[in-house]
Amino acid sequence: MTSAPLIPGTTAGTALARTTADAIYVRDANLVDDLIGRVDFTSMILFELNGRMPSVAEVAVVNAVLVALMEHGLTPSTISARLIYSSSPDALQGAVAAGLLGAGSTFLGSMEHLARLLQEGVTAVDADGDTFEAIAERIVSDAATARTLVPGFGHHIHQPDDPRTPRLLAVAAEHGVSGPHTQLLLALGAAIDRAKGKHITINTTGAVAAVISDLGYPWHLMRGFSVIARAAGIVAHLKEEREMPLGRELWDLVERAVPYRGTGGSADAR
Amino acid sequence: MTSAPLIPGTTAGTALARTTADAIYVRDANLVDDLIGRVDFTSMILFELNGRMPSVAEVAVVNAVLVALMEHGLTPSTISARLIYSSSPDALQGAVAAGLLGAGSTFLGSMEHLARLLQEGVTAVDADGDTFEAIAERIVSDAATARTLVPGFGHHIHQPDDPRTPRLLAVAAEHGVSGPHTQLLLALGAAIDRAKGKHITINTTGAVAAVISDLGYPWHLMRGFSVIARAAGIVAHLKEEREMPLGRELWDLVERAVPYRGTGGSADAR
Amino acid sequence: MTSAPLIPGTTAGTALARTTADAIYVRDANLVDDLIGRVDFTSMILFELNGRMPSVAEVAVVNAVLVALMEHGLTPSTISARLIYSSSPDALQGAVAAGLLGAGSTFLGSMEHLARLLQEGVTAVDADGDTFEAIAERIVSDAATARTLVPGFGHHIHQPDDPRTPRLLAVAAEHGVSGPHTQLLLALGAAIDRAKGKHITINTTGAVAAVISDLGYPWHLMRGFSVIARAAGIVAHLKEEREMPLGRELWDLVERAVPYRGTGGSADAR
Amino acid sequence: MTSAPLIPGTTAGTALARTTADAIYVRDANLVDDLIGRVDFTSMILFELNGRMPSVAEVAVVNAVLVALMEHGLTPSTISARLIYSSSPDALQGAVAAGLLGAGSTFLGSMEHLARLLQEGVTAVDADGDTFEAIAERIVSDAATARTLVPGFGHHIHQPDDPRTPRLLAVAAEHGVSGPHTQLLLALGAAIDRAKGKHITINTTGAVAAVISDLGYPWHLMRGFSVIARAAGIVAHLKEEREMPLGRELWDLVERAVPYRGTGGSADAR
Repeated sequence: MTSAPLIPGTTAGTALARTTADAIYVRDANLVDDLIGRVDFTSMILFELNGRMPSVAEVAVVNAVLVALMEHGLTPSTISARLIYSSSPDALQGAVAAGLLGAGSTFLGSMEHLARLLQEGVTAVDADGDTFEAIAERIVSDAATARTLVPGFGHHIHQPDDPRTPRLLAVAAEHGVSGPHTQLLLALGAAIDRAKGKHITINTTGAVAAVISDLGYPWHLMRGFSVIARAAGIVAHLKEEREMPLGRELWDLVERAVPYRGTGGSADAR
Repeated sequence: MTSAPLIPGTTAGTALARTTADAIYVRDANLVDDLIGRVDFTSMILFELNGRMPSVAEVAVVNAVLVALMEHGLTPSTISARLIYSSSPDALQGAVAAGLLGAGSTFLGSMEHLARLLQEGVTAVDADGDTFEAIAERIVSDAATARTLVPGFGHHIHQPDDPRTPRLLAVAAEHGVSGPHTQLLLALGAAIDRAKGKHITINTTGAVAAVISDLGYPWHLMRGFSVIARAAGIVAHLKEEREMPLGRELWDLVERAVPYRGTGGSADAR
Repeated sequence: MTSAPLIPGTTAGTALARTTADAIYVRDANLVDDLIGRVDFTSMILFELNGRMPSVAEVAVVNAVLVALMEHGLTPSTISARLIYSSSPDALQGAVAAGLLGAGSTFLGSMEHLARLLQEGVTAVDADGDTFEAIAERIVSDAATARTLVPGFGHHIHQPDDPRTPRLLAVAAEHGVSGPHTQLLLALGAAIDRAKGKHITINTTGAVAAVISDLGYPWHLMRGFSVIARAAGIVAHLKEEREMPLGRELWDLVERAVPYRGTGGSADAR
Repeated sequence: MTSAPLIPGTTAGTALARTTADAIYVRDANLVDDLIGRVDFTSMILFELNGRMPSVAEVAVVNAVLVALMEHGLTPSTISARLIYSSSPDALQGAVAAGLLGAGSTFLGSMEHLARLLQEGVTAVDADGDTFEAIAERIVSDAATARTLVPGFGHHIHQPDDPRTPRLLAVAAEHGVSGPHTQLLLALGAAIDRAKGKHITINTTGAVAAVISDLGYPWHLMRGFSVIARAAGIVAHLKEEREMPLGRELWDLVERAVPYRGTGGSADAR
């Protein structure tokens, strides 16, 4: 496929795919000869993201991350997806979209934020010769000054420890791709425990932020891995919703449970 | 986790996940002990969908399908996702959602429709002793009567044959899970060629409909596999959009190219 | 603004807006001189939709419709919008989008379907000289044969009558724009009552379908009026959600109320 | 409707709507007796948002704002909505949702940001006795220090002045609801002109931020007004898309215009 420049003089374009009369290419790989039946889905995702075929270790760690992020039970995302599906069962894509819109700042913002802190911290270690401990202490004291929590720590149910965290870190270590971001995460955990005088768990988002950073992905792509994993989890909820519907009863439940707390507003005031 | 019945007397609930103080279960598997680091993403998807761990053959065929469906270049979905991302770069989930909303009837409807025809056809073969050829002839003549096309056939670029189709069918055959839906698809292809007097390709959506049906998934879940695959493809486009932005130039391109064709509408008419 | 033809030989384009260095036009009206401060929002909507300024009667009836459709309390749409907002409070547009995705076939499909029946029925009256009564009887008997309900009739709470229906029909009559679609709706109500041997209310969607059809809008635009009205209602819910949050408690409520109904699915089966 | 407390001891609930067997209430107004046919859509929106019927002046200014924000021609939002509609014409709500997802930080963030600066500035004038001029100078110098632009100023086409700005400010003044936020906006404009040594226009988002702030709405609701207005504009685009399709040609245009800029990525690297 030849194409004229979009805007003369610019470098805009795409390197992701092109089609000829008898072949489809993703990056520079022939979809039919090189990819279908030859690579698994996770490898395909990483190949398209990065423009190179991932190592076995990369695939293993990303598989572990996607598996960890995929299913969280009935959450704002999956409840919404089920309710929307019950309102519009002929447009499954709309229900998935509604659910994914919950992949926002409240839950994933902390993962992104921590990944950014880790990536900036590791850069500072490399550039300025700071130690992991010094960087960790600075992050903790910055958070204390700003009266915020360090993202990626603490869990309301899983105490003292989120069981997913050591597992994710172990998978990365087993495959030899645990690196400085994980080191800084652990230093940060120690600094938080010292500052609080008690143990605070590193939660799953913390572990994901570290291992994905160790694989070299920029912090702003964290949310992308969650979205891919959640899309799959939401589809499973919609399959169950079709077989064992919950949406109508959730609606009734909410209608019955939420009290009317009117505080004025008659139409006479004008 | 114990919970009161949602509505006394109903059977609504979820079998997908539950959480205790020290463990998370997806179906009846312990997420940490049984899944993270032990199963790949595709296996996890099929495990959650079906409530049983998939066979190697199932994983291989679904991998092939997801790889085939993931990336189609600049399409309504990915163009929209990029434009929305350029308008709202802090909400990646919104751009993915916008793109997924294009996974609708125009493209995926035909995959669903064909899967339904194949599944109803195979049921009729099993129940009534019809032959694949007879069912195929009936589908073709029904479409002719209704002046519609049989879904899953023909391609505007890939002629005479969509190269993905034989590859997908071969993957299923190699793994021993090619079955009656593929048989009916091939009978249907032969019937269409006879009716048209020339060869019409089975396209990718046709091949996907057959192999996913042979794995036992209901026709209304077809769109779910596409949505999972596309979510990943859209994330790759958004990563590229961030690194090599296209959105602003696409907007300029459209603004320059689309003529104003005013046909009235002054404000005086009232 | 001059622009080259999009594709030589086509008639594609837009008649909705154009911009010059010192003016913005919507249709052929100058946005600043003719519209801002001169027309209300509803008139602007109808002006842009139709390319002519609406009559006072049209504005009054559409106002009544939008007011009737805007707020329905806690529904799948508004519950989802609130849950998504609580997950992503920095992306209000995502919460509105999630809510609007509930404007689907379950609720609005019946409005569209009835509008289509009414519009086709009135065409048949005009073309073939059928009576309203004959058309109504045919619609009722077609539904009986297909074992479906006639859309736009019945209400689970508002019995014997949905109070919005006579009000909407009265507004149209007062403004002199009640027409043949309302006549057919009333004939249909009488036919349904005869067939059932008891009174079944015309519900709001039935009344909206008739009065919007009498204003000349095609059936497939029905959903558009609902979407506009609901967007406003959802924004009100999000304002309340910010001031008096409900999202977190709705989530807890659902988690506590929905039982786990596991039916197998250990990870050992492979 | 009576309902048990959602969570004992909390104050969560809704004041927006309740339904009894024979009536629907929005706030404390009877939908049928007080609202349908009695109030226009804009009044209904403000009534639900605020819990009191708006004044004539409030309605006039909000009408002007919604009219100004509704239609901007082919933008990322409307292009996406049209593309998604062409992919999924049976789910109009999905196309509107996709378009609304473009109502994000790039365009509306500046409106919110300015509204926040104006609201905090007016609070400081009231609390600390600062002058508008002093606040304005501080905002300009803060932006210079941060090397950012003051939001709400400048326009790439409308120079020297965005014609919508004086019109919106005039509508507010005519109705006697121009207030301190507008005063601060004008002081800010003068300070920017001094700092730049040339005239920079206050753009539409600047004018909207000021007049909506003068009506008393919090900065975080700015985006809500845009979303309501845009939902209506998008529906008009979808009506036109159905009558004069553009989506398919936009796709072709993009496919032809965007060059492939492959930078590697063969499948052999593993």
